[in-house]
Amino acid sequence: MKRLRSTISGQVFPFERIEEFAGNGESLEVAADGLAGARVRQGRRLWERFADFLPVVIDDEISLGEGSTPLLPAGKALSTFTGIARLLLKNETMNPTWSFKDRGSLTSIAMARQMGEPVTATISTGNMGHSMAAYGARAGIRAVVFVPRYAPAEKIRAMAIHGATVVRVTAPDYSMMKREILGLASGLNLRVVSGNGPIRAEGYKLAAFEMYEQLEGHVPDFIAVPTSACGHIRGLFKGYRELMEAGLTGRLPRMIVVQAANVNPLVSAIREGRDRIVPVTGKETVAEAITSGDPPGGAEILLKARHFGWLAEDVTEEEILDAQRRLAGAGYFVEPAAATSLAAVGKLRAAGKIRQDDSVVLMLTGSGLKDMSVFARQGVEVVESDLRSIRGDVEKILASSPPGGVY
Amino acid sequence: MKRLRSTISGQVFPFERIEEFAGNGESLEVAADGLAGARVRQGRRLWERFADFLPVVIDDEISLGEGSTPLLPAGKALSTFTGIARLLLKNETMNPTWSFKDRGSLTSIAMARQMGEPVTATISTGNMGHSMAAYGARAGIRAVVFVPRYAPAEKIRAMAIHGATVVRVTAPDYSMMKREILGLASGLNLRVVSGNGPIRAEGYKLAAFEMYEQLEGHVPDFIAVPTSACGHIRGLFKGYRELMEAGLTGRLPRMIVVQAANVNPLVSAIREGRDRIVPVTGKETVAEAITSGDPPGGAEILLKARHFGWLAEDVTEEEILDAQRRLAGAGYFVEPAAATSLAAVGKLRAAGKIRQDDSVVLMLTGSGLKDMSVFARQGVEVVESDLRSIRGDVEKILASSPPGGVY
Repeated sequence: MKRLRSTISGQVFPFERIEEFAGNGESLEVAADGLAGARVRQGRRLWERFADFLPVVIDDEISLGEGSTPLLPAGKALSTFTGIARLLLKNETMNPTWSFKDRGSLTSIAMARQMGEPVTATISTGNMGHSMAAYGARAGIRAVVFVPRYAPAEKIRAMAIHGATVVRVTAPDYSMMKREILGLASGLNLRVVSGNGPIRAEGYKLAAFEMYEQLEGHVPDFIAVPTSACGHIRGLFKGYRELMEAGLTGRLPRMIVVQAANVNPLVSAIREGRDRIVPVTGKETVAEAITSGDPPGGAEILLKARHFGWLAEDVTEEEILDAQRRLAGAGYFVEPAAATSLAAVGKLRAAGKIRQDDSVVLMLTGSGLKDMSVFARQGVEVVESDLRSIRGDVEKILASSPPGGVY
Repeated sequence: MKRLRSTISGQVFPFERIEEFAGNGESLEVAADGLAGARVRQGRRLWERFADFLPVVIDDEISLGEGSTPLLPAGKALSTFTGIARLLLKNETMNPTWSFKDRGSLTSIAMARQMGEPVTATISTGNMGHSMAAYGARAGIRAVVFVPRYAPAEKIRAMAIHGATVVRVTAPDYSMMKREILGLASGLNLRVVSGNGPIRAEGYKLAAFEMYEQLEGHVPDFIAVPTSACGHIRGLFKGYRELMEAGLTGRLPRMIVVQAANVNPLVSAIREGRDRIVPVTGKETVAEAITSGDPPGGAEILLKARHFGWLAEDVTEEEILDAQRRLAGAGYFVEPAAATSLAAVGKLRAAGKIRQDDSVVLMLTGSGLKDMSVFARQGVEVVESDLRSIRGDVEKILASSPPGGVY
C-alpha cells in the first residue's frame, strides 16, 4: 500500500493526500516500502523496466518520450579545466521541452490522471510551466499556470501555445502570490504542483535509474545538481537509495548541491553547519532557473547533506558565464543555471574535496535556447567580410589558430 | 572499397573526393556496395549496431549523443485532424542542438577527422551552422560558418559560443555569396559542407535505422519530410533502401516532399510532372528553415519522386501557423518548418492520396525555441488577475472548458 512520508519527522500520510507538504512545512516523499523484491523488468521504455519502483502507472499515451538522454565523457578540455579525469555530462536538455522538468511532469500528469483530475496547476515563470503545459496537452488534462506580472512574454507564449491557461497575477511579491494561490487551491480541490512535490521527485528518480543502466551498474562518486526548489536533487538521490534497497547497487553517490553565490540559502547553510535556511531576498542571478531564495525542500536537503556527507558549492556570476562558454566550447549549449555545476566542481576539486580520479556527473538541466537574453551578455567575435576581401580573410583564418584555445 | 556515385548519371568518383557535387551539378551519394552481408550488430550506440552500413568510423569522442529520439503515436487530436489513424511523430527536436541536423553533423565531423582536416566549413543562417559549430567543438575541429549580412544576431551567437569562427559576408545576394565561397574553398583545400552533401546523408540515414528498430522491422507507408536542401529526405530514403538491400526489410516507404507554398520549387515541379526545378527567388515564408528556392539536390528528388511514387504537397503560411499550434496543442512545440508536414498530410489525406489506415511518420525537424520571432505571431490569451480577484478568476476557470477544444 502506497503512502507518503515526511522526510523530516517520518510521519506518514495517505498517498492520495494532494497537498504537497506536511502542515509544518516538511516536504513529503513517497515511502519506498517493500523494495526488497523489486527488480528491473524487460521493456523498451525506462518506466516499463523500473515499474516496480514507481507509484503511478505510466504509458505511451501520456509520455512525450522524455529521457534516454546521453551520459557522455565531458572531453579533454573540461577534464583539464576541472582537474577531474572522469567527468561525465548527463544532457537533460535533450528532453521534450528541453529541460529536466519533463521527467517530473510525466509522473505529475500520471498522478493527475490516476486521481481523475481534469485540471492541474502550477506556479512558474519558466521551465516548469512550459513542461507542465506540454504534458497537460499530451494527456488531455488542462494545465493552469500562474505567473507573476513580470514574467517574460516569451515564456508565457511557450506555455500558452500548448493550450495552457496562463493566469498573470499582479501581487506585491512572488511569495505573497504563492501563499494566496496555495490557500485558495486547497479549498477548490485544485492540486498545485510544486517543483519539490513528492510525485515530481518520482519522475526525477528515473534519471538515476537511467544512469544506473548507462554505467552498467556503476554508481558515480559524485553527482552535481544546480538546486533551487530541491525536487531534482532529492529525486535523483531517492533513485539511488532505492536501487541500493533493492539490492541492485552497493553504495550511494554523494550529491553536490550547487547554487549561484547571489542566491545561496542552501549552500551557505551547509557550509556554516546550520540546520535552518536563512531566506535570501531581493537578490538576482544570471542563473534564473535557480533563484528560489527560500527553497521549500530546504530542511530535508540540509539534513541529508549532513547525514550522507554531501558537498555544497556556490559560484559567482562571472564563474557562471565562464562555465557556460566552456561547456559550449565542448559542444554543449546550456542555460546559465545548468552551467553552475561545472564551475562548482572545479572549485571543489581545487579545494581537495573531489579527487582527480573520482567519477563526477554534471546534470545539464536546461537548454541554452531557454534564455537568450542572458546569452546576449556573452561576447561574440565575428569576422566581417565581403566579396572583394573574402579570399584574403579565409586565407588568414586558415593560417591562424582558433581564438582562445580552450574555447 | 568505398566510392561516391552520382545519383543522376551513376558516374563513380573516389570516396575522398571532397567536392560534394559532380561537375554538372548532380548530387553524389556514397555507393552502397556489398550490403548483402550487412547485418545489425550488438552495441549500445546506434552507430555501433549499424556500423556495417556506415562509410566512416564514429565513436563517443565525436558524438554528442544524437538520436534515440522518440517515435510516438501523435494522439487522438492530430489523428482526428488529419484523418490518419496511424500517425506517428519522430521528434528530432530532442537532439543535441535541437534539430535533425545533428545526425548529419556527426558523420560530417567523422569524415573531417578521417581526412585529417583541421578546419571544416559551412554556409548557413541557422540550424546547420549551429549544429556544425557544436560538433566541431566536441571533436576539436575548427568550424568556420559563413553567414549573410542579414543573419540574426541570436543565430550568430549560438554558433559563436561554441567557438566557431563566424564570417559575416556582405554580398548582393545569398547565391552570389555561396558561389564565391565554394569557388575559393576548393582552391584552398577547404571542404564546405552542404546540407545535401553525401556524407551528411549518411548521418540522416541513421534516423531510418533507428525507426526500423523502434517499429520492430515495420516499414511505415509514408514518411513526410519538410524539404529544403534535400539532404534529409534523401538520407532517410537511402537508409530504407539499404535495409532492403541487406535483406532486413521487404519494402520501401513512400516519401512525402513537403514545402511552403511560398517557396515550393520541388513540390511544383513534381505536381506538374517536370524533370527540372524552376528556381523560386525573392519569396519568404514563416518556415524559414526550408527556404532554399533552388535546392542543390533537386534533380535527384524529382527523379526519385517519379520512380518511387513519392507524394508532394505544399502549405500556406496560415496552414503552417495553424499546424504549429495544433502540434503544440498535442504536446510538441516545433519550429514552423517542422509543422509543415502536419498540414501537408492532412491535405493529402483529404485528397485521397493517403488512406485512413496508412501508417504515416512526420519528421519533427527542429525545436520551436529556434524561432521565437515567428512565434510572436501566434496569438496568446492570458487571464489577468490580482490578489483581490484571483479566487473568483480561478473558480471561473475551473467551471469553464478550455478555449478552442482541440488546442
